[in-house]
Amino acid sequence: MSILQTFILFSFLLSASHAAVQDFCVADLSAPEGPAGYSCKKVSAVTVNDFVFSGLGVAGNTSGLIKAAVTTAFANQFPGLNGLGISLARLDLAPGGVIPLHTHPGGSEVLFVIQGSISAGFISSSANTVYLKTLNKGDSMIFPQGLLHFQLNAGKGPALAIVSFSSPSPGLQILDFALFANNFPSELVEATTFLDDAQVKKLKGVLGGTG
Amino acid sequence: MSILQTFILFSFLLSASHAAVQDFCVADLSAPEGPAGYSCKKVSAVTVNDFVFSGLGVAGNTSGLIKAAVTTAFANQFPGLNGLGISLARLDLAPGGVIPLHTHPGGSEVLFVIQGSISAGFISSSANTVYLKTLNKGDSMIFPQGLLHFQLNAGKGPALAIVSFSSPSPGLQILDFALFANNFPSELVEATTFLDDAQVKKLKGVLGGTG
Amino acid sequence: MSILQTFILFSFLLSASHAAVQDFCVADLSAPEGPAGYSCKKVSAVTVNDFVFSGLGVAGNTSGLIKAAVTTAFANQFPGLNGLGISLARLDLAPGGVIPLHTHPGGSEVLFVIQGSISAGFISSSANTVYLKTLNKGDSMIFPQGLLHFQLNAGKGPALAIVSFSSPSPGLQILDFALFANNFPSELVEATTFLDDAQVKKLKGVLGGTG
Amino acid sequence: MSILQTFILFSFLLSASHAAVQDFCVADLSAPEGPAGYSCKKVSAVTVNDFVFSGLGVAGNTSGLIKAAVTTAFANQFPGLNGLGISLARLDLAPGGVIPLHTHPGGSEVLFVIQGSISAGFISSSANTVYLKTLNKGDSMIFPQGLLHFQLNAGKGPALAIVSFSSPSPGLQILDFALFANNFPSELVEATTFLDDAQVKKLKGVLGGTG
Amino acid sequence: MSILQTFILFSFLLSASHAAVQDFCVADLSAPEGPAGYSCKKVSAVTVNDFVFSGLGVAGNTSGLIKAAVTTAFANQFPGLNGLGISLARLDLAPGGVIPLHTHPGGSEVLFVIQGSISAGFISSSANTVYLKTLNKGDSMIFPQGLLHFQLNAGKGPALAIVSFSSPSPGLQILDFALFANNFPSELVEATTFLDDAQVKKLKGVLGGTG
Amino acid sequence: MSILQTFILFSFLLSASHAAVQDFCVADLSAPEGPAGYSCKKVSAVTVNDFVFSGLGVAGNTSGLIKAAVTTAFANQFPGLNGLGISLARLDLAPGGVIPLHTHPGGSEVLFVIQGSISAGFISSSANTVYLKTLNKGDSMIFPQGLLHFQLNAGKGPALAIVSFSSPSPGLQILDFALFANNFPSELVEATTFLDDAQVKKLKGVLGGTG
Repeated sequence: MSILQTFILFSFLLSASHAAVQDFCVADLSAPEGPAGYSCKKVSAVTVNDFVFSGLGVAGNTSGLIKAAVTTAFANQFPGLNGLGISLARLDLAPGGVIPLHTHPGGSEVLFVIQGSISAGFISSSANTVYLKTLNKGDSMIFPQGLLHFQLNAGKGPALAIVSFSSPSPGLQILDFALFANNFPSELVEATTFLDDAQVKKLKGVLGGTG
Repeated sequence: MSILQTFILFSFLLSASHAAVQDFCVADLSAPEGPAGYSCKKVSAVTVNDFVFSGLGVAGNTSGLIKAAVTTAFANQFPGLNGLGISLARLDLAPGGVIPLHTHPGGSEVLFVIQGSISAGFISSSANTVYLKTLNKGDSMIFPQGLLHFQLNAGKGPALAIVSFSSPSPGLQILDFALFANNFPSELVEATTFLDDAQVKKLKGVLGGTG
Repeated sequence: MSILQTFILFSFLLSASHAAVQDFCVADLSAPEGPAGYSCKKVSAVTVNDFVFSGLGVAGNTSGLIKAAVTTAFANQFPGLNGLGISLARLDLAPGGVIPLHTHPGGSEVLFVIQGSISAGFISSSANTVYLKTLNKGDSMIFPQGLLHFQLNAGKGPALAIVSFSSPSPGLQILDFALFANNFPSELVEATTFLDDAQVKKLKGVLGGTG
Repeated sequence: MSILQTFILFSFLLSASHAAVQDFCVADLSAPEGPAGYSCKKVSAVTVNDFVFSGLGVAGNTSGLIKAAVTTAFANQFPGLNGLGISLARLDLAPGGVIPLHTHPGGSEVLFVIQGSISAGFISSSANTVYLKTLNKGDSMIFPQGLLHFQLNAGKGPALAIVSFSSPSPGLQILDFALFANNFPSELVEATTFLDDAQVKKLKGVLGGTG
Repeated sequence: MSILQTFILFSFLLSASHAAVQDFCVADLSAPEGPAGYSCKKVSAVTVNDFVFSGLGVAGNTSGLIKAAVTTAFANQFPGLNGLGISLARLDLAPGGVIPLHTHPGGSEVLFVIQGSISAGFISSSANTVYLKTLNKGDSMIFPQGLLHFQLNAGKGPALAIVSFSSPSPGLQILDFALFANNFPSELVEATTFLDDAQVKKLKGVLGGTG
Repeated sequence: MSILQTFILFSFLLSASHAAVQDFCVADLSAPEGPAGYSCKKVSAVTVNDFVFSGLGVAGNTSGLIKAAVTTAFANQFPGLNGLGISLARLDLAPGGVIPLHTHPGGSEVLFVIQGSISAGFISSSANTVYLKTLNKGDSMIFPQGLLHFQLNAGKGPALAIVSFSSPSPGLQILDFALFANNFPSELVEATTFLDDAQVKKLKGVLGGTG
């Protein structure tokens, strides 16, 4: 009996266990979703393209007044990330650009500056401490899960950063959108933030909020 | 270009990521369940009522001889809890009432006394140590996951407690039910508990067990 | 040989495994803390009092203008909770009282109304949807991890609620404190929230913020 | 430049990351323990012997009346298991031997019969269903986390099984020990189990319990 | 009112919570799979046979040249393991038999020698340290998650071991199969392993690889 | 009473809970390490610099024959990552450069190409399938936990990528180092890989291995 025959035999003996072992769980966005993520696409239908994403290669549109754009690669956009505990996004900041205060309820973030200079900060819950830093090309900065943070362009040219999250679906709650871009009644916004009525109504006007 | 236009643009750029980010996973009790919990209801079908439950506002029936009732708000009753790592229950104890020895295989419990006085205890596995305490209104007590514990009314009036669990589906295994309220053969009960045959048959008779 | 001798023997055979099995891990606040929580107190030093807490039996002081108080029972106050994935807090709201917009970065919350009437709400990240409800005695409401939420007294008398969290250390980030009660430079607050300078400075004045 | 030089260079560049990467965390039983397990021994002090255990090679003493013995290899006995989510034990059952009803609060169990014949069962919490089976050499059986279960020798000769747990410290709560082998007051045992006073006192007598 | 009536009442009050509490989640291999495992079979369809597996009672075929066989009991073969964090396998090694270098990407392993003598080893990532040991009947050895390891028969007679994993689907990546038993282009194998072309082609020939 | 006084009061009431809430756990590399990571530095000693790392801004030395370098930012180098479930690394590939076959036992990886063109691939365990792709600037690719993978420069100029991991300590096991750069006895390498003796000894010679 040859070595070849041996291995074929060995391979056969192991084959049952090979059918469904879960190396990965590429999201089937049309099947049920559970607390741990999306259902898995059949392994037989998975190709390398499920693990490759080109969407972060395109600069976001920074021509607006905030002069910034966030392009995400979360599990619903990049299905190969499903179940793997990680995702990415791209930040483009034109000169003067700003990513307003926001949180990621579902994950921590690490930012890596590819181009330009970025001022960033987060506020702790334990003592409302503000952690601020101006980052240059090649610098990394951590924003722990659920804490308010921001990034803004600190230089004269465009800035670009790639960010990673500790979850395939970290979420993104932008403070101004949560307060002013929906039908959250102005009187409740005011009662729970102590902002003035005029301020609330002004920003609701800008952001398309009602109530 | 106005600020409004900017935000609309900004909003548009972010919109893809907003479609399926998983802030919560309200249980769809009719869809497949997995090890992490129930499938999620479509976000578009979720309303505030999925996050509100009134079932714990009603006192349980304590007119029986054990003079106690447990009303649970686990994920199968309060679907908004699915995937969130928490659930609740309400304990009503009439004078003389008792919640018999039981465990929660899937979660730890914290009890808060709203009314009356409750004697409670649990037994550790490490040394069979009994941790006993009589609790008054406003007191809290912890019962770690999987350990045998009980609560009984220690006062003259009714007692009421709200309890929380570290799982949306903590389970509830009542010792007497596990031993005497099913078809667990008496000889096996006796062989594995060292209880006398007469004792086993008496409680099987009371609790409707067979075998 | 008697049954007693048998059990003693059996007990002896098992004794090695009993020494350090981890039913619980009561926090030793003076020892090192790690990502999973505090170090454990020696089991031999643990008593039932480590599992009992009376601090939630006392009403918070609601005589201030916000007419509300939060009293927490997190692992650093109630060390028996360490490692068990759960904690509690008590909310007292005098008539007109409000718990301002805040998040818990580390856990989901379930509120149970013991007394009075409470209006509560949270905002999702997925679509900035506002989920609002007025709750009465006996009602429960869920606030998923990391999402902005608030509670305010919706009745004419005092309101009382007990809340549970899916973490022994869920954290608490109050929006106004994060923005206005520290040295977060006003110009950065304004640039990242689009609030007016006068508004920021007014609230910084009220809350003792600088910069 | 040789390939050797290249690799040495490459190796050098990687060396910083090699210092403390955590492949394993062998327990240092003398250092602080946390909710996730024991502190790690220094990697430089770890040898292959930390990953090898001979204690399960020795038959337990089954000469007592229960004619059975459990020998555990949990993390406190086999420190290499710390943090790895698994542990083992060995069950020896002489003819007529029984492992009384018990639970493992911290982990699920799988049993593999090496010798003899074993009757085993567990009771679900959901419906108090009894799952019973007689197992022969080569059979495996699952006992889910926290559920009451037992094993007894179903044959005429000795039986031997190796069991695995889904936790390095699954715990072991033996029902009779929890009820009768400590100072759990008889009246509380009776009130919370509905066992007769005579039965409780008889077993307390046998097992050395007081109160 | 009798005690029986009381318990029936008590039972009724609890019944809602009993319907779907999740003690276990037996895999329904025909329903969607997610990152946490397979969907659960309906509890009403579960029997004790879902928790019992006889496949490890049969020796693997060791008549090939490697003189060894691995028989797995992962969740796809033993569906009761789904969601429980554990699985098993059986190793048969005829004299001269070897289980080639491999990893389990999804779980740690503990091996228990039932018969014969086995030499085993693993290599750490932190310092490429080789941990080697010859194990005899009754010895256990740990192989931490994801690290390369092997087992070979060190005695003159057959060897048998039962192994446990800390995951119901630990996976199995055999080094030679990954390199030589597929269409991994030879030039890429050579470029990324520094193996000689002749060596790669020889083993590709033996193992049926192409490219 | 002023609003200021109110907030001060409110702040005071909350202060107990603020002392030790765990937003983050910056590693204290000199204190005990556990399975969940390093002990936490005191919050009072934490500064923004614990969350910022400049080490990935410097190109690795690619002047060796493999013409590649990996620079890691794991928790032991970037202590702010401790406990946060994420880490980073930088890959520099000169023309012709290659990162040899390796695994990360403790985490999944996502790579983002900043400059140049990279051919990358991984092999699944389920069917030894090879997933290969040539990536250009702006492309991302996933490498699931524990699976063998590689990257090599596919272009004519230098290539640069930033990679993220789903663990603060993902580990790094380079196949050639594990086999040939230590004292792993040649006969065992050969017996468990089926490589020829001459091949093993040649690479041991190159990589400094013994035995």
